Amino acid sequence: MARLAENQYGKSRVRLLKVIKNGAQHEVREWTVGVYLRGDFERHFVTGDNAGMMATDTMKNTVYSVAKESSALTMEDYALDLARLLSERNPQVGHVHVTVEEKMWIRIKAQGERHDSAFIQRGPDVATADLSYTPAKAGADAVAVVASGVKGLVILKTSRSAFSGFKRDRWTTLPETADRLFGTEATIAWVYSEPKEDYAAVRARLMDTLLTTFAGHDSLSVQQTLFQMAEDALAVEPGISEITLAMPNRHNNLVDLSRFGQENANEIFVPTDEPHGQIQARVVR
Amino acid sequence: MARLAENQYGKSRVRLLKVIKNGAQHEVREWTVGVYLRGDFERHFVTGDNAGMMATDTMKNTVYSVAKESSALTMEDYALDLARLLSERNPQVGHVHVTVEEKMWIRIKAQGERHDSAFIQRGPDVATADLSYTPAKAGADAVAVVASGVKGLVILKTSRSAFSGFKRDRWTTLPETADRLFGTEATIAWVYSEPKEDYAAVRARLMDTLLTTFAGHDSLSVQQTLFQMAEDALAVEPGISEITLAMPNRHNNLVDLSRFGQENANEIFVPTDEPHGQIQARVVR
Amino acid sequence: MARLAENQYGKSRVRLLKVIKNGAQHEVREWTVGVYLRGDFERHFVTGDNAGMMATDTMKNTVYSVAKESSALTMEDYALDLARLLSERNPQVGHVHVTVEEKMWIRIKAQGERHDSAFIQRGPDVATADLSYTPAKAGADAVAVVASGVKGLVILKTSRSAFSGFKRDRWTTLPETADRLFGTEATIAWVYSEPKEDYAAVRARLMDTLLTTFAGHDSLSVQQTLFQMAEDALAVEPGISEITLAMPNRHNNLVDLSRFGQENANEIFVPTDEPHGQIQARVVR
Amino acid sequence: MARLAENQYGKSRVRLLKVIKNGAQHEVREWTVGVYLRGDFERHFVTGDNAGMMATDTMKNTVYSVAKESSALTMEDYALDLARLLSERNPQVGHVHVTVEEKMWIRIKAQGERHDSAFIQRGPDVATADLSYTPAKAGADAVAVVASGVKGLVILKTSRSAFSGFKRDRWTTLPETADRLFGTEATIAWVYSEPKEDYAAVRARLMDTLLTTFAGHDSLSVQQTLFQMAEDALAVEPGISEITLAMPNRHNNLVDLSRFGQENANEIFVPTDEPHGQIQARVVR
Repeated sequence: MARLAENQYGKSRVRLLKVIKNGAQHEVREWTVGVYLRGDFERHFVTGDNAGMMATDTMKNTVYSVAKESSALTMEDYALDLARLLSERNPQVGHVHVTVEEKMWIRIKAQGERHDSAFIQRGPDVATADLSYTPAKAGADAVAVVASGVKGLVILKTSRSAFSGFKRDRWTTLPETADRLFGTEATIAWVYSEPKEDYAAVRARLMDTLLTTFAGHDSLSVQQTLFQMAEDALAVEPGISEITLAMPNRHNNLVDLSRFGQENANEIFVPTDEPHGQIQARVVR
Repeated sequence: MARLAENQYGKSRVRLLKVIKNGAQHEVREWTVGVYLRGDFERHFVTGDNAGMMATDTMKNTVYSVAKESSALTMEDYALDLARLLSERNPQVGHVHVTVEEKMWIRIKAQGERHDSAFIQRGPDVATADLSYTPAKAGADAVAVVASGVKGLVILKTSRSAFSGFKRDRWTTLPETADRLFGTEATIAWVYSEPKEDYAAVRARLMDTLLTTFAGHDSLSVQQTLFQMAEDALAVEPGISEITLAMPNRHNNLVDLSRFGQENANEIFVPTDEPHGQIQARVVR
Repeated sequence: MARLAENQYGKSRVRLLKVIKNGAQHEVREWTVGVYLRGDFERHFVTGDNAGMMATDTMKNTVYSVAKESSALTMEDYALDLARLLSERNPQVGHVHVTVEEKMWIRIKAQGERHDSAFIQRGPDVATADLSYTPAKAGADAVAVVASGVKGLVILKTSRSAFSGFKRDRWTTLPETADRLFGTEATIAWVYSEPKEDYAAVRARLMDTLLTTFAGHDSLSVQQTLFQMAEDALAVEPGISEITLAMPNRHNNLVDLSRFGQENANEIFVPTDEPHGQIQARVVR
Repeated sequence: MARLAENQYGKSRVRLLKVIKNGAQHEVREWTVGVYLRGDFERHFVTGDNAGMMATDTMKNTVYSVAKESSALTMEDYALDLARLLSERNPQVGHVHVTVEEKMWIRIKAQGERHDSAFIQRGPDVATADLSYTPAKAGADAVAVVASGVKGLVILKTSRSAFSGFKRDRWTTLPETADRLFGTEATIAWVYSEPKEDYAAVRARLMDTLLTTFAGHDSLSVQQTLFQMAEDALAVEPGISEITLAMPNRHNNLVDLSRFGQENANEIFVPTDEPHGQIQARVVR
């Protein structure tokens, strides 16, 4: 006899671009939204009865509609507006999970001036927001947990990175080094203590702190630098309760030029995507 | 004051291809392996002390070495051999997570005969294995939880799929239909009750059952078909304790040909990748 | 003073899925179509005058409309129908280039039987068609050049492949070998002498010949095997005038297991995507 | 009887990262190099005789070796050094084609200062270089044709873009508009009259001109803006002889919010990747 344990359904990869106009001065937001619901849906799965079910197509329409209605300038505030509307109108929903990714558009510099209404996309990093929303029920208030972050942050340091003193056994061939490249494509997310921050300002301060620590740290390992970045982030930003960093070690392998009669004093490397180290941690206060 | 909550590290995307030779008759296995460790690693993060740490490069070497030594013909058995060796040699490791993906290579049919040593890759689906391994410690036996599955299984049915009776509100524009296309790129994984199955035989039987149910089911919704597939899988295979299916609804949108004076009796569709519905559930006994 | 040299415009990545119904027995075709026009378009570029210009949105609509109207079962025949309609209705068009890629859908085998209306996608190779169409003009007949092919054909042979005798200089480190893996992701296209073939039958015969030669050839180099495949294709199929093959050498690098005290008699390899050799040739009669 | 028409072989996707050190001040170049040779190679294909053939593995090694030896700071100058060495040492080579793509790394701003040796990757656009090199032969001098460009330049303008006056027929459903979004992922390449420019300076000036024209142009069509960009580029830079632009029209579709009782005054769009218009031209003096 089969029994439904957990289930969820929703709509993924709903893309929208919003143009915000202050006269001739435009801003653009490009968001990719995901909405995932949990709740009292068992009969939909077990019997095929669709009564009361919000179609995922309706969720998609709601994503666009709220984008128009909402005055939110950040995706975190937008996600809150979206989750509230979806759960108010659908009492069968017990939990709403909203994810948003934002592609970065910056103004084109045309002859030294930032243009009013022309933009160039910048990446590869995208900003992320993640909302876990439990609607008010039976006297209990609604609970919103907001996390913000960044994905695909590709950074590299060419000095102040060592790796030595690790365990050596039959399968260890990696030489110890006092000077290596340290490259990563980081995914970082921080959780707010309260869902009422100035999300854009916190993001700017945290990104500045994270990049400054990455650049300046005398690294003995990816692990140590990751933890130092987390520690500095928590120190600079009292409004966040925790931060999670995943920092794959994207290896740049030194080319053996001695085979061609040349030296290679940490000058010529082969960048690789795979295999890669994968180091991650959640750091709390 | 910052404090490490969870952490893990490991090596991702270690690719290997093994040629198994029975005389002139060859077989190939192409596996992409990930190894992730948890354990007593806090000082590596906090102080930069690397003493006793297995480098991720050493893990990579071990992946290759075990591939040679092991007689495993399935990735599930290989993963068990790998986790055992890694944990035996590294007592600081408290948990090993191994993931493997297998690309499917089948024999080329050359003039009607399956060739001994020439192969063609088949996909887009890849087979998956996932091992959670807790080494024996202080009298307690080792615990191995093995899951197998498939990823990227792109399937489509052009009849016996309806969707109607769902909730209609201000944001609902989707028409009801008694006849639609039902396409998905499924991700499926099942968990074995005991880690000692004939993994290849179970996989073959389950894939046959899952595809048969998908094809034959009179579908009232993705949810209902998903649950029926799970139910039939659990019924056919007593050695598995649960199954999880994620079935994104990859929409094929009917083209409005009436604008050109043509009918479209469910003949011409636009296949899309985004946005897509996302339906998933875990089903247990 | 700037002057327009060549120009073209069109619509790319127009996806369509056609369901062909013979009672309960369905077939599906999934095509991604590109349409590119050349002709008398200079004033559109130079002055911004759009008079007489077919919008690319109109091309997209035509792609769908012809898919409905046309009785073509192959993408080659469909492409001809599409090019004819586009050029008849738009005399300003001097040349139509149509590209089509077909994803392979095969029937799901449900309890041993091929199902009527349920399908599984197979790849990674996709079938391709390419039509160069010059409409009739001033007494001259229309000219249609049809090419068919395959893209992303991932094949591998584990025996009968050597590579030795090549030039050695200061930068040569590759050892000679009498026994290596030979893997490629081939792109192949053949041109028909006349645009009136049974395209599906020719495709089936050529794929069989190409794979048979790849499998059985005693290869001294990628170059030699490529040429032999071309030669056999031209021999088996009198209706084609030429064939072009691009066979990147996707290297499987032997792992040095001697560092761990193990032998590696061509058993354990690291498959790589980059860098890769790139060998290509056009072969004619 | 089969006969070799054209052929070429080479090495693709050779990635390298070069660290250029001026004391503590570092710079990085990340290049992906392709090398493709044409020449007197027929017997390699036809007979399998490899004598005199430069292995593609040797080309790869040469790419790294020249990266070390060469003092070039631009990929254009590097490509010239590479092509000269390859053809000097291999008289059987009749033509060398070198392609290079450069990922952009900029200094991390750490507490307001550009850091000496820490970098962040910027894209999605990559800079490109393309060298066609014919070695000196029988009294004729070597000929080098250098092109530079950019790929994946994702730009968007939210005003000053119209599209109207185009042809309407049975398949035309696109409304005319005086105000639409205009987004593209441009690929642009310019050819130098002589291979001895300050490539970095020309690139900077041309990118500034191209972006300024894109931003400021009162666009009647993609075609017209493309041509204007070309015309302005040729005007600003006497050292280039031609420029080619491919500007796919990546559509942002206006959402019909009237179905939900809302207006949409060009505010909420759905960005799409497919299908897309494809407009391209080569513009000469």
